[in-house]
Amino acid sequence: MRTLPDIGIVGAGIAGLHLGLMLRQHDVPVTIYTDKPAAALANGRLLNSVAHHAPTIKREKALGVHYWPVEQYGYSCHHHYVGGPRPLVFRGDFDEWSSAIDYRLYLPKLTEAFEERGGQLEVRMLQAEDVEPLAERHDLLVVAAGRGAFASLFPRRPELSPYERPQRVLSVGTYRGIAYSEPKGVTISASPGHGELLEIPMYTAAGFTTALLFENVPGGDLEILGKRRYDDDPKAYERLVLDKLATHHPRTFERVDPAQFELTSPLDILQGALTPTVRQDYAKLPNGKYALAIGDVHTVVDPVIGQGANSASHSAWVTGEEILADYGFDELFCRRVAARRADVVLGAAQWTNLMLAPPPEHLLRMFGAMDENKAIADEFTNNFDYPDRQWRILATAERTGEFLARRS
Amino acid sequence: MRTLPDIGIVGAGIAGLHLGLMLRQHDVPVTIYTDKPAAALANGRLLNSVAHHAPTIKREKALGVHYWPVEQYGYSCHHHYVGGPRPLVFRGDFDEWSSAIDYRLYLPKLTEAFEERGGQLEVRMLQAEDVEPLAERHDLLVVAAGRGAFASLFPRRPELSPYERPQRVLSVGTYRGIAYSEPKGVTISASPGHGELLEIPMYTAAGFTTALLFENVPGGDLEILGKRRYDDDPKAYERLVLDKLATHHPRTFERVDPAQFELTSPLDILQGALTPTVRQDYAKLPNGKYALAIGDVHTVVDPVIGQGANSASHSAWVTGEEILADYGFDELFCRRVAARRADVVLGAAQWTNLMLAPPPEHLLRMFGAMDENKAIADEFTNNFDYPDRQWRILATAERTGEFLARRS
Ligand SMILES: Cc1cc2nc3c(=O)[nH]c(=O)nc-3n(C[C@H](O)[C@H](O)[C@H](O)COP(=O)(O)OP(=O)(O)OC[C@H]3O[C@@H](n4cnc5c(N)ncnc54)[C@H](O)[C@@H]3O)c2cc1C
Ligand SMILES: Cc1cc2nc3c(=O)[nH]c(=O)nc-3n(C[C@H](O)[C@H](O)[C@H](O)COP(=O)(O)OP(=O)(O)OC[C@H]3O[C@@H](n4cnc5c(N)ncnc54)[C@H](O)[C@@H]3O)c2cc1C
Repeated sequence: MRTLPDIGIVGAGIAGLHLGLMLRQHDVPVTIYTDKPAAALANGRLLNSVAHHAPTIKREKALGVHYWPVEQYGYSCHHHYVGGPRPLVFRGDFDEWSSAIDYRLYLPKLTEAFEERGGQLEVRMLQAEDVEPLAERHDLLVVAAGRGAFASLFPRRPELSPYERPQRVLSVGTYRGIAYSEPKGVTISASPGHGELLEIPMYTAAGFTTALLFENVPGGDLEILGKRRYDDDPKAYERLVLDKLATHHPRTFERVDPAQFELTSPLDILQGALTPTVRQDYAKLPNGKYALAIGDVHTVVDPVIGQGANSASHSAWVTGEEILADYGFDELFCRRVAARRADVVLGAAQWTNLMLAPPPEHLLRMFGAMDENKAIADEFTNNFDYPDRQWRILATAERTGEFLARRS
Repeated sequence: MRTLPDIGIVGAGIAGLHLGLMLRQHDVPVTIYTDKPAAALANGRLLNSVAHHAPTIKREKALGVHYWPVEQYGYSCHHHYVGGPRPLVFRGDFDEWSSAIDYRLYLPKLTEAFEERGGQLEVRMLQAEDVEPLAERHDLLVVAAGRGAFASLFPRRPELSPYERPQRVLSVGTYRGIAYSEPKGVTISASPGHGELLEIPMYTAAGFTTALLFENVPGGDLEILGKRRYDDDPKAYERLVLDKLATHHPRTFERVDPAQFELTSPLDILQGALTPTVRQDYAKLPNGKYALAIGDVHTVVDPVIGQGANSASHSAWVTGEEILADYGFDELFCRRVAARRADVVLGAAQWTNLMLAPPPEHLLRMFGAMDENKAIADEFTNNFDYPDRQWRILATAERTGEFLARRS
């Protein structure tokens, strides 16, 4: 006889849902609290432009929620373009494919699966003062509420949070009129001093579209894409996008058909900015119980290298395994989750933060090596799946030097 | 082309040798510095009475140094005796056998293998001030010097070191005249308030002998075994041992043949005491390089549940894997070793420290359950191989309660 814990989860994003689904596979009673019904998400504004990498797709398969087969919806590579006087153009191939499905399709479908499998869903807006009574109701409360409401429960860790403000001003939208790259892949285009473009083959309610995620440096020539509101003059905004693509991100521009180019629908654009922040792994509540943070409420990364959701899913997975294996939900439990996920989750955060900084010499060396050596570009690309490995290569100039010495 | 780091190791105990042997399997240049030639160990005083558990034996096999096949030299179980008005007597079986080989045989044989396989051995007595120049000579310096000389390099971690002084006064010797238990196993006998006896079937230069490791509570009736010097009057000491066995550890006493009973030789006894201490994982040297601590110099545990050498070997293994996988020997490297070994190494320390304390209620409940339920006794016994798992069961009363609820 196995006694089963009762788990409460705040938040129905990827973190909360992957954890909830995993626990339901083991018959653990789970309640997810969320402020928005799935239908509101489905019909709402674009949430993000998330690419899932192979480890996340493996978890989806294990959870029985891989509804968009990666061979059909996914892509196989990264096309890199680094602008400048002597542009670098090279490709890195994944061993296993990634894919990007609009979260307005993805999250509602997983929410449905969660409920079908006996998960409880309570739709209500929670406040900070609800946390303690909720924790009373369950053996463990996991907070997976994203970067909003509950962040203050988990103090910021300054030693892992080098930035006080956003490093990029974002504009992300799904567009038609852009031919996919060959082979189908994400194009990562950097315009030094101005920011990056991630061009992502994304499946949405409108079918196969292209997400353009502009990561614009504050003060640079592209900042305006994040600042000028699309809604004020949609056509003018689209012309602005085309104009900036032509100047800064030519590899994507050359695949645009200007006659067809437009946002797929007025809700399919999101503009804003976020401050990368790593927070404490858990909080001790006044009643003596612990609340564990997973996903964005624990670690917010800038989306410039597409790590946040993958990291959130990893965190959910580790948490689920520990819930199933452990005998209590005390500080020892929380610390063990923290220790087990640290390499991947903090690796993702640290690598991302490096990519936001003015590129140090050794990162430029790395790009140079990728341009010259396909195997290195492939390894770099595969390490989007393993941010801990990537960080171990990129953390210092010495490490990158040693990595390159071994590979050449 | 793989560039190979050059590794220096201070200490030729199990920690230094397991690490050195592992690195030699991958052609990594290694120098071990030690203050004693192997021959001095071989002909010297008893060092300890170490039992190796299955994970350590697996590592020996992987290293090609499993010279005393466990099926022939090992044992299969723990016989428990807990004295008191209503003594508990029960047995726990291992899934995989353990074994105890005299380190005066074991360490010299592994040292020989290390040198045969191209490892460098430098016999010299080092001082604290030698550490920095040695670190200069190698890409990484690993300190595996046991609980003596270099401990001060790695500050004590008070939150993990609850004791300021020894909790047991030890007397360990190898004896003849004790028939092995059936099935062959270690007997763990507790005399509440006075201490424990570990009776270990140990293979030594004298053949199959029995190690009696008396773990005596300071101030208790058995303390004298650690305090009275054997050498002052060997026969009287042996009579004292017999006398104390009869009173406190009857399950062992009943297998003694008093006519045959004696120490196997005058050097085969060791008396003393140690303070359980967990130290920092690594130190930054003034020259900017890092020295990593493994084995007793990092974590000294009382031998009451036989964890120190197994923990040291685990630490060596994790360190070796990280040396082979990583690109630099900086703080990130040291932290990763620390994080990866923490569950096993600190689990061993915390579990051991619990066993040294006056037994809390939940530990007594656990013993009661083991007495009644063989499966629980077997699981407890197998967890000598996995101190992290054991600690997760025993860390709090709630955890033990939950564990027992699930198992019954
Ligand atoms: C433009 C963009 C592109 C991105 N691209 C990628 C990418 O390519 N790859 C990648 O891995 N990551 C990417 N990310 C990051 C990724 O979107 C997030 O890391 C991830 O979705 C976070 O998931 P989560 O479950 O932690 O939080 P969320 O998805 O934010 O979920 C939070 C949940 O909590 C609920 N909630 C919040 N407050 C309350 C409250 N007060 N009461 C009740 N419920 C509440 C919400 O309704 C929601 O259900 C991108 C992000 C952006 C913005
Ligand atoms: C009685 C007893 C019973 C035990 N039973 C068990 C058991 O059943 N199971 C278990 O797992 N553990 C047991 N232990 C613990 C185990 O013996 C130790 O944890 C283990 O041997 C430590 O190994 P090490 O390599 O870290 O250090 P050590 O074996 O102490 O090796 C240290 C090395 O460093 C060298 N050195 C030290 N100082 C210097 C210097 N200044 N210059 C140069 N070289 C130096 C030494 O010569 C030696 O080679 C027991 C210990 C005792 C005392």
